Amino acid sequence: MYVIVVGAGDIGTPLVDLATDSGNEVVVIERDEERAERASRQYDCLVLNDDATSKETLQDAGADRADALISTTDQDATNIMVCLLAQELSVPNIVSVVHNPEHMNVFEQIGVNTMQNPQSLIAEYLYRAVSRPSIVDFMHIGEEAEVFEITVGPDAPIAGKTLREADEEDLIGGQTLIVAVERNGADTPITPRGTTRIEAGDLLTVYSGVGATPEVTDVFGHTEDHD
Amino acid sequence: MYVIVVGAGDIGTPLVDLATDSGNEVVVIERDEERAERASRQYDCLVLNDDATSKETLQDAGADRADALISTTDQDATNIMVCLLAQELSVPNIVSVVHNPEHMNVFEQIGVNTMQNPQSLIAEYLYRAVSRPSIVDFMHIGEEAEVFEITVGPDAPIAGKTLREADEEDLIGGQTLIVAVERNGADTPITPRGTTRIEAGDLLTVYSGVGATPEVTDVFGHTEDHD
Amino acid sequence: MYVIVVGAGDIGTPLVDLATDSGNEVVVIERDEERAERASRQYDCLVLNDDATSKETLQDAGADRADALISTTDQDATNIMVCLLAQELSVPNIVSVVHNPEHMNVFEQIGVNTMQNPQSLIAEYLYRAVSRPSIVDFMHIGEEAEVFEITVGPDAPIAGKTLREADEEDLIGGQTLIVAVERNGADTPITPRGTTRIEAGDLLTVYSGVGATPEVTDVFGHTEDHD
Amino acid sequence: MYVIVVGAGDIGTPLVDLATDSGNEVVVIERDEERAERASRQYDCLVLNDDATSKETLQDAGADRADALISTTDQDATNIMVCLLAQELSVPNIVSVVHNPEHMNVFEQIGVNTMQNPQSLIAEYLYRAVSRPSIVDFMHIGEEAEVFEITVGPDAPIAGKTLREADEEDLIGGQTLIVAVERNGADTPITPRGTTRIEAGDLLTVYSGVGATPEVTDVFGHTEDHD
Amino acid sequence: MYVIVVGAGDIGTPLVDLATDSGNEVVVIERDEERAERASRQYDCLVLNDDATSKETLQDAGADRADALISTTDQDATNIMVCLLAQELSVPNIVSVVHNPEHMNVFEQIGVNTMQNPQSLIAEYLYRAVSRPSIVDFMHIGEEAEVFEITVGPDAPIAGKTLREADEEDLIGGQTLIVAVERNGADTPITPRGTTRIEAGDLLTVYSGVGATPEVTDVFGHTEDHD
Amino acid sequence: MYVIVVGAGDIGTPLVDLATDSGNEVVVIERDEERAERASRQYDCLVLNDDATSKETLQDAGADRADALISTTDQDATNIMVCLLAQELSVPNIVSVVHNPEHMNVFEQIGVNTMQNPQSLIAEYLYRAVSRPSIVDFMHIGEEAEVFEITVGPDAPIAGKTLREADEEDLIGGQTLIVAVERNGADTPITPRGTTRIEAGDLLTVYSGVGATPEVTDVFGHTEDHD
Amino acid sequence: MYVIVVGAGDIGTPLVDLATDSGNEVVVIERDEERAERASRQYDCLVLNDDATSKETLQDAGADRADALISTTDQDATNIMVCLLAQELSVPNIVSVVHNPEHMNVFEQIGVNTMQNPQSLIAEYLYRAVSRPSIVDFMHIGEEAEVFEITVGPDAPIAGKTLREADEEDLIGGQTLIVAVERNGADTPITPRGTTRIEAGDLLTVYSGVGATPEVTDVFGHTEDHD
Amino acid sequence: MYVIVVGAGDIGTPLVDLATDSGNEVVVIERDEERAERASRQYDCLVLNDDATSKETLQDAGADRADALISTTDQDATNIMVCLLAQELSVPNIVSVVHNPEHMNVFEQIGVNTMQNPQSLIAEYLYRAVSRPSIVDFMHIGEEAEVFEITVGPDAPIAGKTLREADEEDLIGGQTLIVAVERNGADTPITPRGTTRIEAGDLLTVYSGVGATPEVTDVFGHTEDHD
Repeated sequence: MYVIVVGAGDIGTPLVDLATDSGNEVVVIERDEERAERASRQYDCLVLNDDATSKETLQDAGADRADALISTTDQDATNIMVCLLAQELSVPNIVSVVHNPEHMNVFEQIGVNTMQNPQSLIAEYLYRAVSRPSIVDFMHIGEEAEVFEITVGPDAPIAGKTLREADEEDLIGGQTLIVAVERNGADTPITPRGTTRIEAGDLLTVYSGVGATPEVTDVFGHTEDHD
Repeated sequence: MYVIVVGAGDIGTPLVDLATDSGNEVVVIERDEERAERASRQYDCLVLNDDATSKETLQDAGADRADALISTTDQDATNIMVCLLAQELSVPNIVSVVHNPEHMNVFEQIGVNTMQNPQSLIAEYLYRAVSRPSIVDFMHIGEEAEVFEITVGPDAPIAGKTLREADEEDLIGGQTLIVAVERNGADTPITPRGTTRIEAGDLLTVYSGVGATPEVTDVFGHTEDHD
Repeated sequence: MYVIVVGAGDIGTPLVDLATDSGNEVVVIERDEERAERASRQYDCLVLNDDATSKETLQDAGADRADALISTTDQDATNIMVCLLAQELSVPNIVSVVHNPEHMNVFEQIGVNTMQNPQSLIAEYLYRAVSRPSIVDFMHIGEEAEVFEITVGPDAPIAGKTLREADEEDLIGGQTLIVAVERNGADTPITPRGTTRIEAGDLLTVYSGVGATPEVTDVFGHTEDHD
Repeated sequence: MYVIVVGAGDIGTPLVDLATDSGNEVVVIERDEERAERASRQYDCLVLNDDATSKETLQDAGADRADALISTTDQDATNIMVCLLAQELSVPNIVSVVHNPEHMNVFEQIGVNTMQNPQSLIAEYLYRAVSRPSIVDFMHIGEEAEVFEITVGPDAPIAGKTLREADEEDLIGGQTLIVAVERNGADTPITPRGTTRIEAGDLLTVYSGVGATPEVTDVFGHTEDHD
Repeated sequence: MYVIVVGAGDIGTPLVDLATDSGNEVVVIERDEERAERASRQYDCLVLNDDATSKETLQDAGADRADALISTTDQDATNIMVCLLAQELSVPNIVSVVHNPEHMNVFEQIGVNTMQNPQSLIAEYLYRAVSRPSIVDFMHIGEEAEVFEITVGPDAPIAGKTLREADEEDLIGGQTLIVAVERNGADTPITPRGTTRIEAGDLLTVYSGVGATPEVTDVFGHTEDHD
Repeated sequence: MYVIVVGAGDIGTPLVDLATDSGNEVVVIERDEERAERASRQYDCLVLNDDATSKETLQDAGADRADALISTTDQDATNIMVCLLAQELSVPNIVSVVHNPEHMNVFEQIGVNTMQNPQSLIAEYLYRAVSRPSIVDFMHIGEEAEVFEITVGPDAPIAGKTLREADEEDLIGGQTLIVAVERNGADTPITPRGTTRIEAGDLLTVYSGVGATPEVTDVFGHTEDHD
Repeated sequence: MYVIVVGAGDIGTPLVDLATDSGNEVVVIERDEERAERASRQYDCLVLNDDATSKETLQDAGADRADALISTTDQDATNIMVCLLAQELSVPNIVSVVHNPEHMNVFEQIGVNTMQNPQSLIAEYLYRAVSRPSIVDFMHIGEEAEVFEITVGPDAPIAGKTLREADEEDLIGGQTLIVAVERNGADTPITPRGTTRIEAGDLLTVYSGVGATPEVTDVFGHTEDHD
Repeated sequence: MYVIVVGAGDIGTPLVDLATDSGNEVVVIERDEERAERASRQYDCLVLNDDATSKETLQDAGADRADALISTTDQDATNIMVCLLAQELSVPNIVSVVHNPEHMNVFEQIGVNTMQNPQSLIAEYLYRAVSRPSIVDFMHIGEEAEVFEITVGPDAPIAGKTLREADEEDLIGGQTLIVAVERNGADTPITPRGTTRIEAGDLLTVYSGVGATPEVTDVFGHTEDHD
């Protein structure tokens, strides 16, 4: 792909890293001279030290043949202007960071894909880390359901049981599915079957139709967080 | 829980929102006067407009009885000083944002939980949004495996087939598991069985032991992104 | 009318002056505290010292019942964000200043009326003031035609002649029409007829299908500016 | 002409554009280094990066042989000092922007032509755009009279009538004159005669001795703005 | 007198001190808040913390009944704008500091009294202090003549002589006049007569038609500065 | 002379002008880069862009062979440090500007010649210019006495009289001496004798033992300023 | 004592702490508002938020009855001005920090006690901490001699010996004297005698006429630092 | 030794001076460009103008083979981050300045040697200089004991006596030991014996088990400071 990244700041920089690593042709537009220079030094990409809210700059960046443009500046107003100009220049795929949740709708109205509330996402992770420290990672599915990674505690009711046994003992509700089992830091998770025995210390990937509520997570041995 | 949040900036603000919403007792420490005032106005929490790298400030914030402290300033050095002082004051659960990946190890050495590379996470989402726009959300499991949400395209090989049929036609590999099916914006995803028929427009939650590679995702009808 | 004016700077201030003078209900949104205070002191209007790129601010300003919103900040990106939010809030008439001519199209695409290039307009006036000092004011009609005000010089060919005489002597081309005659500073211009005699010192309002070219203006006695 | 332009900011830049385009010899004086460089890069003119309130600078700019000097800085005090020095150096034609209306008189006292209140002009245009959106452009003639461009609405009383018919039906008052008719975006306006039929969508140039009052504009079909 | 002083900086402050001490009614206009406050605290005068280039401010300061206005800001352009506005408001006596010698003429043209080059005056004093340290103070009379104060050196030819003797010995040229003699720090200088005996250590006030040249000053015993 | 001038600001610049004009060898020390460059461009002198409160800088400036050092920065503290270092380096003649009158004594204690209160001097000139506009220049002699230049008004009692007549009519007190008479802009003043007739318009240099009080100046025709 | 401390920065703050703790009457002068407030809050002393280079401020601080003044600002020039004013006000004991070693002499010339090079002192401590980590503290006596504290290493030649034995075995040179022995963290050091036995882990206070050279320190068991 | 010095500010600079003078191989890391350049110019060492809180920078500085790292920046948080990274890179000897006494413990916890409160040390010296001016230098030994240098006053009880006589007269308590005598500015102090006679003006190095209390110091003739 030919990708234009607008902004080489906190978000733009790892993005450029990722996009160049994956072998894409990347052009960066960054207004700040120091940041532009650093990006130019660190990554294998063309860096324009210019204002991306100018059509000319976007054309110089190759907007006519770009497959995608990603706007990552920390000003929503700047991002929207960049996206509108990119639309005018017919960039096929346009994505933007949005900082103020109130602005989400505006971006959607004009047909720009958005990365919803990056800071909120981080905030939620941090909050989980203290409110339910046993949950390592998680992903929302619709309104309630969740997939989450959880470590099995030493005294967990499920520890030492096979999935079939756990099922028979009604330890796992109908809405819950153990998707994968990571054990001893092995690279590849085990796809669990009825005969798979869960051990303390396992890192389970679990799907729960009702989310990671205490009722669901208790069986994995973490009772500390009934808040 | 009694939670101390250090920093009321881009990350701290939604975190305070979340923590107060969940009914926790929250104390915010923010050095910048304007931010401190805004936080105080918006959330039901105590806000100290002071320097969190002072033990006295942490004590004023109730570090002796706090269940957790989350450090969210944009300076890793500040975060580490705050975490060390919090350790000295015996705060049981200490979490910190880390901005520079090189500093991850240092935080781990001193025993602080960290939120790994928030900006990298965002960058990866943005990159996926342009490189694989059909993937709505995703979560890494170990090194390779992934759980991801994907919409079923109109011409997808799997569209119109039951899971059993898909299985019989070898459309879905052994390492792939369809975990949940969201349909027509219903609140609760369907837990799929062998007789469940996949339709174009369904939003599937899929587990893949080898990640969301083209080989895995093609069956859901998205061929555009063989980069 | 109920009018929201965004920005109380160089352009916003005389606009508020005009709009309040005409008896409209005016709400001003200005981010800068000092400017907000000044506007509040000087004009009979409500002034919100807040950020207009927030939907909440626009709602506080009464966007739901406003007849019009005029965005006058000196940042095009800010103006476009304000206009998009105003559209979302269904303000019926939205107008914006646009500073960079490249951005005109973007504003038009999203359906916002614009005030085209205010600085260019001023520049043209200034240029006329030195290149054709006898032309007091002017207005472009389409690509070439112009209406302009011009003073009759003491040695002007037309001075002392009636319009009929001027017509007979072919002093005035077919594309030229004398629309009005201001004389001796009288409040009301004379609507000219065939018998109206043009005098040196008259201030004529002239329509010319080919613009205010030297060929057209020479008859009014100004030969100095054949550049 | 040989023209000295003082200031290459928001107003100075389009002025230099205009003046160089028209083939004049232009010298720009701009104190700010960045602006001076940009002007030098973009236009075919000499740019002095210096302080125009120094006689030496004005002499370097060729004040002794300049036909005109236009002062466009955003400080009235600076403009007046520049104008006084230009007078001392006998520049024949001196024009200045004036920002504070209170200062108009001072400029006139010392004999400098001024561009009256550029921001007020813009403010009036913006206000018209919301209070009488059908009026596209306008020009004041004396105290009350106006020339204005107006689009004919679909239900306008005058639509479908010849001018003679309109006159006979008393649709157009004695103080009103239709000067030109632009139709279908043609380059040249039609000079209207008695037999010219006005159509909905036409863009008329109208002279009205009493200004663009509702009484005058109603016949063109715009009743929405009787405020 | 009723005096308006514009600027309460390095020059304005001692001026206000002097003017209030002499019992005048003084109004100070100072834009900088801190300086305005300090002046208000220290002196018995009204202080307006406002912009003096506004006619309204000058009217608030009582320009209509002021006997004089003295403009002391460090910007010549500001001073000239203030003076022009003061003229428009008919202040009878207007004086201004001028910093750039090139601007002297401009001030004179518009009829403002000026304090010529304050810094040059100081520079000359400093230069004298090193080039002719025996000269304590001096004043130019026309092009060449000077009045100066000089101390009589211990070995001065004139020391111990009466003025008559000095005259007879041709020590004092025809163009030189000893105007006053200060001795032993007495408050009142002695008006010298022919019998007055000059002593080493006396501080003489001398008039010289040719200035304080070495030829003139040598008789007072200072030979060190024949440069 | 070899002179070191510290500071190339408002006072230092005309001082360097004067000192280089008089053929001295001048070295300038100025910390600010821009000022240093300008001084270097304009004057025939060596300019060190360095901190003068460093002994090394003063040595580089040739303090060991300098005849004099003049410190003109706008910080008294800086000036005193420079003077003390210059004393340590045995510069024979050291002079400094002093801004705060309270600091005069301190400079004198350490044996530095000072230029007393430059701003006060200017302030006094300005004040005289409005309080006694007829007095053109003046110099204090001791506590009370003054030498001053005054123009003879058209209705002055002394106008048209010889000095002898004026003396006989007791117009001039015993403490007053007319030192010189400038007439018609001639280069050389007239040394007045008993037969010299004073004319309206003459510019007199007058010595008065009691200062330029109204009693003294009235005879020269200026009654306006009995304040 | 009545002590005036000038400056409440890095050095001034612990000084005020010390001086108030010891029961002195302390007045602090600090120009920075924030620092002044903090000092006022933390210590039992009067704090003047003013400029100490003003005689008036020093008088307000009670300079007439002060026993001592300590100037601790980070500007040598400011410190010297403060000290000179304090001398003029006859403060009996005046001490100042000096930052630039070149300025030491100047302070001494005017008779001010100085704290020599605080940063150099710290630098030397830091350097010792890495070059001779066994030396805990030290003090120079004249040019070469030193008193130092050193811990006795486990394999030190002197460990386990009485001083007499050490003397007899020539372990300790004639220029070395063991002054005190701290053992087991006891409050009071032991005054050593011939029969006192040195043990590994003792912290000795040693005087050496030739300084803490390796030859001298080896006997205490630290050979690592022969650099 | 191979030493890395972080920070080339007030403390870092004399440290680099010392460390290079002693023949060590020194690498300096300084973020500020100006400071980095100055250090590079003045000292024989490698200077990296970079951020020391980056592991890469420390590696570039040779952290893998460094014998020691000394962190001297004025931010405790920065110092601790640098120290933690240096630990991770296994630098054998790590020392840091600590500014806030509250942070001492944190540094100790992670095992970093610290230079305790440099500003407090200076403050104590300054305080001694005014409270006991006769004490020239001092060093604490444990809680109470001190070694100090003191000058013998002209009327001191001990002046003119041998140590034996002083002992016999009980002038010197059992806890006090005169360690060395500096006389007449000689390079080498005298090691005192019983027959050594103390003279007024001698500079004594004294050990006192109870500190430099008035009871101890009175015998050396300084009674002024019984506070």
